[in-house]
Amino acid sequence: MSFSSKYIEEAVEHISKLPGIGKKSATRLALFLLNQELEDVKSLTEAIDKMKSETLFCSECHNISDTLVCEICSNSTRSDQILCIVEDIRDVMAIENTHNYKGKYHVLGGLISPMDGIGPSDLTIDSLVSRARKADVLEIIFALNSTMEGDTTTFYLYRKLEETGVQLSTLARGLSVGDSLEYADEVTLSRSIQNRVPYETSIQQNRS
Amino acid sequence: MSFSSKYIEEAVEHISKLPGIGKKSATRLALFLLNQELEDVKSLTEAIDKMKSETLFCSECHNISDTLVCEICSNSTRSDQILCIVEDIRDVMAIENTHNYKGKYHVLGGLISPMDGIGPSDLTIDSLVSRARKADVLEIIFALNSTMEGDTTTFYLYRKLEETGVQLSTLARGLSVGDSLEYADEVTLSRSIQNRVPYETSIQQNRS
Repeated sequence: MSFSSKYIEEAVEHISKLPGIGKKSATRLALFLLNQELEDVKSLTEAIDKMKSETLFCSECHNISDTLVCEICSNSTRSDQILCIVEDIRDVMAIENTHNYKGKYHVLGGLISPMDGIGPSDLTIDSLVSRARKADVLEIIFALNSTMEGDTTTFYLYRKLEETGVQLSTLARGLSVGDSLEYADEVTLSRSIQNRVPYETSIQQNRS
Repeated sequence: MSFSSKYIEEAVEHISKLPGIGKKSATRLALFLLNQELEDVKSLTEAIDKMKSETLFCSECHNISDTLVCEICSNSTRSDQILCIVEDIRDVMAIENTHNYKGKYHVLGGLISPMDGIGPSDLTIDSLVSRARKADVLEIIFALNSTMEGDTTTFYLYRKLEETGVQLSTLARGLSVGDSLEYADEVTLSRSIQNRVPYETSIQQNRS
């Protein structure tokens, strides 16, 4: 593609470096921005610059935060006895949206993935181990995706943390609420059978 | 969704205003940018700002340009006798990529679309009519998409331009080169039959 303006060409080149955006989408986005009001475009680029320069990482859980210690870590009504280990901020948001978890988090910042050159030292594992050694932590929940990288990371963390004596658990895997058995994959369905729950418990969970 | 940082929330809000990008994709893009080097993010936002502030529109054909008269309009080897009317810069790029058109362009900047509040006065139609009245224009090609808006705009332009005496034509519609008849839609196939081409002509076109 040859652009009639080198400014557009440069903008398209930068936009197409974003994940999931190819050259055609980038051109569409650049032309869209060109047709917007100057102040709208300015406020977009300023918001991005500001996010990049102002956002901090919580010194406790490594979640993204506007303050040195994030709102969740500094919330005294949340339990220090239970830690949920997640990959990134989106997982924190997903779990927070359930309004069903009252412990604290630990954000790894990624998963161990030799293919992408990400090793244990690139993640916040040292800080996790020192948090786990604190007297008040009783349980650690591994809430990583069950991909190869997620399972590898969970197993690595399990080996690192088993000698701390803290109870280690993982998220339950099974059929989604509302799923029909017919369309479930075999692995998920067999996990649902293995980890079956007393009927009384499930009634109580449905009520809450 | 509740974000742990208001800077991210603002950036996501702005990014999700882009066409085709919802809140989830915007979050993914914001987190991607947050993990990039500061200078990479800066160069993205600067490229967008620069595109918005520096890009001009050619005073002749209204194509996007870095100069007052664009490269195509100021190219003396291109014919002034034939004008190709297109919706926007992407269509110019598509036609230029064929290396098969040696005339000039006229970029409308949109299509007539009452649903979106776009009327004839929002497009560069007055300037097109005055260009068509110039002595050296012999033919005008309507190269608009064959959507309802495109067809409406083409018809509107046809009524505006028919009294200028310039020859008016539209792009040929028919089967794509390489398409099989079996999978073509009826309208396209019947257009291909109606506008059939002498075999000798098609051989020559295949050679060029």
